Amino acid sequence: MALDRLKSVAQHVTGTLPPPHPFDPLSNAEIETAAQITRKEHGKLHYNAIFLQEPRKKEMLKWLEDPKHTPRPRRIADIVAIAPGGKVYDGLVDLEEGKIVKWTALEGVQPLITMEDLQAVEHICRKDPKVIEQCVISGIPKEDMHKVYCDPWTIGYDHRFGNTVRLQQALMYYRPHVDDSQYSFPLDFCPIFDADKQEIVHIDIPDIRRPVNQAKPNNYHPASVEAEGGYRTDIKPINITQPEGVSFKVEGRIIDWQNWKVHVGFNYKEGIVLNNITYNDKGNTRPVFYRLSLAEMVVPYGNPEHPHQRKHAFDLGEYGGGYMTNSLSLGCDCKGAIHYMDAAFVNRAGESTTIKNAICIHEEDAGILFKHTDFRDDSVIVTRGRKLIVSHIFTAANYEYCVYWIFHQDGTIQLEIKLTGILNTYAMNPGEDTKGWGTEVYPGVNAHNHQHLFCLRIDPNIDGPNNTVFQVDATQGPGEVGSAENPYGNAFFAKRTKYSTVKESISDYEGVTSRTWDMANTNKINPYSHKPSSYKLVSREVPKLLPKEGSLVWKRAGFARHAVHVTKYDDDQIYPAGRHVPQTSGEPSRGIPEWIANEEASIDNTDIVLWHTFGITHFPAPEDFPVMPAEPMTLLLRPRNFFTKNPALDVPPSYCSTPSQIAGQGKVLNAADKMSKLVLTGGDASCCKK
Amino acid sequence: MALDRLKSVAQHVTGTLPPPHPFDPLSNAEIETAAQITRKEHGKLHYNAIFLQEPRKKEMLKWLEDPKHTPRPRRIADIVAIAPGGKVYDGLVDLEEGKIVKWTALEGVQPLITMEDLQAVEHICRKDPKVIEQCVISGIPKEDMHKVYCDPWTIGYDHRFGNTVRLQQALMYYRPHVDDSQYSFPLDFCPIFDADKQEIVHIDIPDIRRPVNQAKPNNYHPASVEAEGGYRTDIKPINITQPEGVSFKVEGRIIDWQNWKVHVGFNYKEGIVLNNITYNDKGNTRPVFYRLSLAEMVVPYGNPEHPHQRKHAFDLGEYGGGYMTNSLSLGCDCKGAIHYMDAAFVNRAGESTTIKNAICIHEEDAGILFKHTDFRDDSVIVTRGRKLIVSHIFTAANYEYCVYWIFHQDGTIQLEIKLTGILNTYAMNPGEDTKGWGTEVYPGVNAHNHQHLFCLRIDPNIDGPNNTVFQVDATQGPGEVGSAENPYGNAFFAKRTKYSTVKESISDYEGVTSRTWDMANTNKINPYSHKPSSYKLVSREVPKLLPKEGSLVWKRAGFARHAVHVTKYDDDQIYPAGRHVPQTSGEPSRGIPEWIANEEASIDNTDIVLWHTFGITHFPAPEDFPVMPAEPMTLLLRPRNFFTKNPALDVPPSYCSTPSQIAGQGKVLNAADKMSKLVLTGGDASCCKK
Ligand SMILES: [Co+2]
Ligand SMILES: [Co+2]
Repeated sequence: MALDRLKSVAQHVTGTLPPPHPFDPLSNAEIETAAQITRKEHGKLHYNAIFLQEPRKKEMLKWLEDPKHTPRPRRIADIVAIAPGGKVYDGLVDLEEGKIVKWTALEGVQPLITMEDLQAVEHICRKDPKVIEQCVISGIPKEDMHKVYCDPWTIGYDHRFGNTVRLQQALMYYRPHVDDSQYSFPLDFCPIFDADKQEIVHIDIPDIRRPVNQAKPNNYHPASVEAEGGYRTDIKPINITQPEGVSFKVEGRIIDWQNWKVHVGFNYKEGIVLNNITYNDKGNTRPVFYRLSLAEMVVPYGNPEHPHQRKHAFDLGEYGGGYMTNSLSLGCDCKGAIHYMDAAFVNRAGESTTIKNAICIHEEDAGILFKHTDFRDDSVIVTRGRKLIVSHIFTAANYEYCVYWIFHQDGTIQLEIKLTGILNTYAMNPGEDTKGWGTEVYPGVNAHNHQHLFCLRIDPNIDGPNNTVFQVDATQGPGEVGSAENPYGNAFFAKRTKYSTVKESISDYEGVTSRTWDMANTNKINPYSHKPSSYKLVSREVPKLLPKEGSLVWKRAGFARHAVHVTKYDDDQIYPAGRHVPQTSGEPSRGIPEWIANEEASIDNTDIVLWHTFGITHFPAPEDFPVMPAEPMTLLLRPRNFFTKNPALDVPPSYCSTPSQIAGQGKVLNAADKMSKLVLTGGDASCCKK
Repeated sequence: MALDRLKSVAQHVTGTLPPPHPFDPLSNAEIETAAQITRKEHGKLHYNAIFLQEPRKKEMLKWLEDPKHTPRPRRIADIVAIAPGGKVYDGLVDLEEGKIVKWTALEGVQPLITMEDLQAVEHICRKDPKVIEQCVISGIPKEDMHKVYCDPWTIGYDHRFGNTVRLQQALMYYRPHVDDSQYSFPLDFCPIFDADKQEIVHIDIPDIRRPVNQAKPNNYHPASVEAEGGYRTDIKPINITQPEGVSFKVEGRIIDWQNWKVHVGFNYKEGIVLNNITYNDKGNTRPVFYRLSLAEMVVPYGNPEHPHQRKHAFDLGEYGGGYMTNSLSLGCDCKGAIHYMDAAFVNRAGESTTIKNAICIHEEDAGILFKHTDFRDDSVIVTRGRKLIVSHIFTAANYEYCVYWIFHQDGTIQLEIKLTGILNTYAMNPGEDTKGWGTEVYPGVNAHNHQHLFCLRIDPNIDGPNNTVFQVDATQGPGEVGSAENPYGNAFFAKRTKYSTVKESISDYEGVTSRTWDMANTNKINPYSHKPSSYKLVSREVPKLLPKEGSLVWKRAGFARHAVHVTKYDDDQIYPAGRHVPQTSGEPSRGIPEWIANEEASIDNTDIVLWHTFGITHFPAPEDFPVMPAEPMTLLLRPRNFFTKNPALDVPPSYCSTPSQIAGQGKVLNAADKMSKLVLTGGDASCCKK
């Protein structure tokens, strides 16, 4: 590993490797270079993040258009560092010039909590006399402090402490045995950890005490399953293989698959970033999206009792979806023929680290892509589809989020997120009333209501950067039944509302009208439909932000107040809750609320970004425990009036017969998969015989 | 085939086969027996349908509970027949007694249009002088009448003709060449066909004439794809195999898979019917659903101009989702290890017919079932899921509907429907304004706005037949920010509204509260959560019925006025738009509107049926043409407070390591799929090494 890294540094320095693509994340070598340069100038620093400052868009669009005759955008390292004493710095290093181009001290902000930050707290809790005292009160002997665990969370915001001190709240648990799931043994108090002092500075203790749960452990590991009868034995293998290889090509980090091209980036906060997504439309490379990412999320919990209001994790902005990414494994996380990409980060000391297999790229069969049978003669076409999936999984303390970016052959891009992992739990006494704020998912275990709200940042590039968003509502036609204009009362149409200004774009979901949003290029009209070339956002899991207007979550997670906000593109507007999220008070609200302040700014036919908040409201049930079956949610970006016909017509069918072939002229096309087999019975099932 | 059938008759008669399960559809032999018995009594009849009258529930529940000591419910054939002269009869034949137990002449109703009914119309149109005249006006020489086609639809309801005459409307098309897609060449007039007279009795001719399209054909067959550059050649095979066989067992028509048991029935209207769905919860067989089916659908079109208001097909009630079912093919429609079931029907003459491979049953990998990593030591569990899919595909003239009933290991049942096939199209002149009622998807081709609304009939049996429905809305807690009860404004809860009466149950979807519906057994309380055992309906594609109150569609498709209706169970309430749908006027509305007439009827803790209307509103675009990429929609039935824990904990993990194993004590569980492979690059990706 160390040797590899040295080699990579050397190659980069001596120029034997091609230069990185401007969208490529910083390499291990680049990260270490940036650390060295800043350390040299500013002395010892705790590095919070070193990542690519993505190229300025104006410059990048020029380069993408004509890379040979345009200067390559420079490699800039974006840096967040904490100096001894807790001072926070935002910096930029020009890696080619080898110099610091920005170095700004920040006041009253805290950069995100890294995995290294998190790891420290548990050890300190176990030794803290006041924590030990609380454990004893909870019924845990002090010699059992090694059985006490904590999930350190950012504190959210607590007005008692403000944001000048770097804090974590320690959600406390107990494990009777090291292999027991701690989430069945939540403790009722909450220590506050000061990262500068590296000590517990306060403990929140509830009025009503709840001693440690006396229920039996509730586990999911093999020993516990064996003790309850063992694993089921009736599952036969399903093998998925691609003996001739996969249908995608990878050049650097650019994936080329079924007319799609996409650059796959990755950063510590957002995880996967998809850049410069284009579609080869019969030889014409058409831009579709400049950039897609999950840019933020918030998980507000709904129990009003102190201090549970502090549970509203911004898992991306406060911890980092990239930092928390799992190293994926073949045959477990990923099945079939797999290509992996690694992710490089900086550690606190300024060394580069690598998450191997951070990103999984693979193809899957997608069932029927299209089919039609003529009822007259059973002439038929059956074409099977497939999809390309670019995925990562991150673990946010108790929860796991599996993120799947899915490309389809019909021009659709789908985002699917699966929630799994373990519920955040709190202690409850026997017979205690949850008051509806949670569910007793196991005796003595209260899993509080919560929402998972994601903010999808869509930077559309529909046939070019100048786009316009239209709200589309399925709407009844005017005129009552019997009127001249609507005699039969059956008229309905797609009501299109153009968002001309930022203010107009601030919009909620409307289930009853099946509301969608078109990102359109009004300069490019479909020659058949005479409607602008567009991609439609189809998203159906769009709950309201349930914390009330004026509440802490409402103030801090301004992006989540509405389903859609549209802003004019700005290179520096990436993170919808702000660049540094922990301990923001929401006064003022950071991110989108700042960017929409100029309500009258035009977003018509210009370079825009659409921010979409979606997700689910989770009312726990025992079925979600002790580990939760994956709950999926999905949304689509669908081409509408972008193509002049189904763009997948040239996908080879599995079977196709025409009327003339049915009538005996010519041979039908039979390319049925010969690997599929009948099971259980004999009988004739050969392809498409009628 | 004929021999097979004789053998089957013989076996049944001589008793060498076990008796059919009471839920089994009628066999070919039973169908022919029923036809013989009625023919003997009533002379020559045109058989419209002969199908199983499902056992009366009271009787059947007793038999299911104790089949050995309870009389087996009798086999009853349900018959719809048309006598010469057009008289319609509903009949019942007791197959064991060999006698007719009901024979009722009906007035003013028309049974559905069979495939045989449909096939006749085109030939008659081609020879009809008035149709020929209109074709000539449209620009088609009369010697080209063999190039004229029609999709015969039920007429919907046309007050000029009423419902005593059996009618079809012929949507007219032209094919320049026999292999050309006719949907690019719609004609502008609409003949009305009288089934009794077997002739065209009227032609609806628009004021503005639209001659046949002069555009080039727009096809999807191989010759056309070859002419435009050919098929893409970069798709490598994906092989899905189960070398050790499948994980489900089939006994008769009962599927046994991963603790689920379900009887798979089939009938001419609904297609797949799932009966007596149970879950084996650690040896305890728990009833979940007594019956699930798609019971009706309606596809209203939104163009207010005459006669397009007549386009609102009830594809199940007017044509039959079973009758229109495709014979599926291995390696085309179905990939992997497949079990098929056939479907038996009657033809007009009273002979039995068979659709081979009408139902496809197979397993699929379902990605990650659950996963959790402990961030402290990377101890991890990764368990992959799979699903069982019971599917059929039916072709309704231009459209195809692919229906997938999906069973999951976590106790979830999912219904997924994919829409594919071809848009219904109408002629338009160059430069003509669609007025927003449709989209020009190809020059001269207007695809009208429409909805696809499905009615899912759910007969819950959640731990027994007595169930209660609760509406669940994610709701903010009371009290403003700063109040004593909600100091931080973050309180939210699941507001549960019990439906005590039919009237209370009539409800719409509410996107903003992420509304769901719990089907609960209030007599069976979850010992952990203290909430009733239940299954939750999670459905997000729930548009409003867009035809207005009082319109023809609103009157005829009463079921579609609301997302949910709950009724007390009645053996004879199966079809939500009525038993015989064609040419119903909606005065009075049939089906659900009749069944909810007693608004105050109790639906609390009794045997109930939940009727759920869902679907999509389809505003066509050129991407949908000339054949439409499959558009999916889905809904879930999820166990909530039904189990005491994740019921899939005993699914063998692909990989599992515990903290003690990570610390060096004991061997981790590594059952990673060894068939998965790295592609494109080397590198270390062996399972779950960290
Ligand atoms: Co959750
Ligand atoms: Co449609």
